[in-house]
Amino acid sequence: MSTAASFPSASGTDERDVVALLRDALGDAVSTDDSALSAAREDKSGHVSPSAPLVVVTPRTTADVQAVMRIATQTRTPVVVRGAGTGLAGGAIASEGEIVLSTLAMDQLLEVSRDDELAVVQPGIINAELNAQLAPHGLWFAPDPASRAISTVGGNIATNAGGLLCAKYGVTREAVLGLKVVLADGRLLEFGHRTVKGVTGLDFTALMIGSEGTLGVVVEATVRAKRITPGPVATISASFESVEDAARASAVITASGLAPAIMELIGESAMRRIADYLELDHPGGSQLIVQFDGPGAVVESEAALASIQSLGGVATLSPDPAESERLFQVRRSFHPSIARLGHVLIEDVCVPRSALPAMFSAIGEIERKYGIEIPTVAHAGDGNLHPNFVFDGDDVPDHIWAAADEMFLSALRLGGTLTGEHGIGLLKRRWLKDELGDDQLELQRQVKRVFDPLGILNPGKVFEA
Amino acid sequence: MSTAASFPSASGTDERDVVALLRDALGDAVSTDDSALSAAREDKSGHVSPSAPLVVVTPRTTADVQAVMRIATQTRTPVVVRGAGTGLAGGAIASEGEIVLSTLAMDQLLEVSRDDELAVVQPGIINAELNAQLAPHGLWFAPDPASRAISTVGGNIATNAGGLLCAKYGVTREAVLGLKVVLADGRLLEFGHRTVKGVTGLDFTALMIGSEGTLGVVVEATVRAKRITPGPVATISASFESVEDAARASAVITASGLAPAIMELIGESAMRRIADYLELDHPGGSQLIVQFDGPGAVVESEAALASIQSLGGVATLSPDPAESERLFQVRRSFHPSIARLGHVLIEDVCVPRSALPAMFSAIGEIERKYGIEIPTVAHAGDGNLHPNFVFDGDDVPDHIWAAADEMFLSALRLGGTLTGEHGIGLLKRRWLKDELGDDQLELQRQVKRVFDPLGILNPGKVFEA
Repeated sequence: MSTAASFPSASGTDERDVVALLRDALGDAVSTDDSALSAAREDKSGHVSPSAPLVVVTPRTTADVQAVMRIATQTRTPVVVRGAGTGLAGGAIASEGEIVLSTLAMDQLLEVSRDDELAVVQPGIINAELNAQLAPHGLWFAPDPASRAISTVGGNIATNAGGLLCAKYGVTREAVLGLKVVLADGRLLEFGHRTVKGVTGLDFTALMIGSEGTLGVVVEATVRAKRITPGPVATISASFESVEDAARASAVITASGLAPAIMELIGESAMRRIADYLELDHPGGSQLIVQFDGPGAVVESEAALASIQSLGGVATLSPDPAESERLFQVRRSFHPSIARLGHVLIEDVCVPRSALPAMFSAIGEIERKYGIEIPTVAHAGDGNLHPNFVFDGDDVPDHIWAAADEMFLSALRLGGTLTGEHGIGLLKRRWLKDELGDDQLELQRQVKRVFDPLGILNPGKVFEA
Repeated sequence: MSTAASFPSASGTDERDVVALLRDALGDAVSTDDSALSAAREDKSGHVSPSAPLVVVTPRTTADVQAVMRIATQTRTPVVVRGAGTGLAGGAIASEGEIVLSTLAMDQLLEVSRDDELAVVQPGIINAELNAQLAPHGLWFAPDPASRAISTVGGNIATNAGGLLCAKYGVTREAVLGLKVVLADGRLLEFGHRTVKGVTGLDFTALMIGSEGTLGVVVEATVRAKRITPGPVATISASFESVEDAARASAVITASGLAPAIMELIGESAMRRIADYLELDHPGGSQLIVQFDGPGAVVESEAALASIQSLGGVATLSPDPAESERLFQVRRSFHPSIARLGHVLIEDVCVPRSALPAMFSAIGEIERKYGIEIPTVAHAGDGNLHPNFVFDGDDVPDHIWAAADEMFLSALRLGGTLTGEHGIGLLKRRWLKDELGDDQLELQRQVKRVFDPLGILNPGKVFEA
């Protein structure tokens, strides 16, 4: 496989012909505007491609997507599928010679079934918009990446996105029943079911989820729509002297059998930055924010409060939705508080929950060794940490990569994984082999080739170091 | 790919050499006893292989499994992986020339982590035994096939097994975090994580689950161990005049936002057979048994009772565990009540929950058309029906296959699937293409070849019509 530099292709088509073929098939859904091309060079990872793609196409129908893929196959042109561009690993960044296939015009909720607790959607629908449309039916779509106000369901599927609610409500893989997928050669297939259960053949639905645009183009998804949890929520905000203490409290909460809907942990330097940003009076230390929902919310939150206090946390408990919202404002201010400091590399390791205190200690050591600050927040209920590396300039400097490298290896040593919910994309390819090993990586590449024998789907991403 | 009839193999080894190589490597873990060979000709599907396999090996360690697979690869000998032999689709049935790899000696619980809510097990551990060993830790493994007293966790993984609790607690795929797998050529790989989240590369863990022994040999599994739900259970047993009425009541219960742990529906002819077997006074009609657990059990069961009564159900509600157990005795007597009538083909279609009444109607029509009785029970919470076909003699007669064929096509027409939890195995291969289509079936075969290029893992099963 190679990137697009190898034009003209085997079929003798040159780049102008590709654009002309696309225009013939899709008309004004094809753009070569500088602004459109330029936008596709980056996502929210901080990485910018050195070159712009060939063309951006924005298909309106499944037939349009099939036409694009047939032209791409015929002309051996690489295709980067892209939703809202909110990815954090460079998976939807496009470069010279590539077709960007934007899903943003395929953004409809096609069907809602309250009885079957499912919805059928197009990939370009925004997460928040889907939930707004489901709410009148008393339903919701559980995966909730922090970007949900602007990110697409197709993007969730591409990365197996998580969010704040995963420990209780699951990740994207648990929320998708079936997919319609256009293959690299333009054929349309249906994977999975409308049913809750189904074991007919290999689970290609699960294989697609998290495949980051390397296997096919999702054009329709049948997703679970859960009933909205009735009743009040109760929220605890607790301060601890150290992040290790806060992490220990979060472990005790889960170990005591409580099931928070959300449990967010804010590390010491992260909390300092947030306090600066919000102009709070902050004595130092770490913050743990825990929310319970459902009929047991009050009882469970009181039990959690007792645990927190017995472990030295200074905490407030609020059953009031507006006050809950205010407590979460602290957590929501994390990204803006960091973004104003410079370019940010948002990392995403996941460790077994019990290893959370050890992982925070390891990050502290790396901070001291490299003389840098690594503001970190964590979805404590599932051991998923987001350490943030701040740097000047467009490119991640070597000492930051060296620090990130140590952090990844620490996570792997603790039984963890390189990425909990963001994916490999461009930016984590160099560590993929450390986790999978050579043999598994080769097996994954072979499966990729079964779906995409010409290597035109998102070449250079995920599998290629 | 071919079955074993093509011996001597490419390497020139004959069958005696294969057994000798296995004995050299595994000593007394290798058996050619008639009784062992004969047992591997059947499972619980009612189907019996016309011939006995070559040899049964019962490895004790991962290294043993690797040795078996190396010999199988070297001699091109097919391998059928087998747990407790409780499958219902013929997936672990072995024939002439095949090595049976029994997982039954690899039956240990290797690790329990209460903090990380996980257990590490070998594939041969019996489901009930795992739960007995987890109980002192306050944990349980949720997948609960009806065979759980005698079936293995490896078997659950091979078929993505479900059971009574899936609507609330998920199927096997939701319960497995990671797998150690020996490939066809003897290499050992690790798929997945110990973490709750993880998106490093393609999801090979999910691909393995439900692959019915066609991709590799699972030698270790890291599974979720949930905290035991505290508090009482409450159970409703309700009689309805017709199965359509009972199915409608089950749909109303879910539609009203209640989340039963178990909701079992017993069709009319099934209920008649159970009443005969238990010598109950039975006026006819269908039975719905609903169980709630957790802190809301009593409140939820009272709401469900009101729905049932408003729909014409005659019901009793019991919060007493012993009485609950007695109510479930009716459901548990279904299989013995049918088994004494003759050979039984236990089918396993799944439809969207809202289509449950329509599917029962379709089964009623097939009963009338063919002049046969199709006693049916259903896991109503997830639309999974088990229609049972009773016949005389060892082979399924043509008119029974014809009736089953109509039933499968009805399920597909209603948006359902051929198999909710039993798998394709040998017995459903002929309908696989109806559900997947030619293109997807070919893609599945190609992925199978990536894992097993020589086609020695469970040849003739699942993918080959």
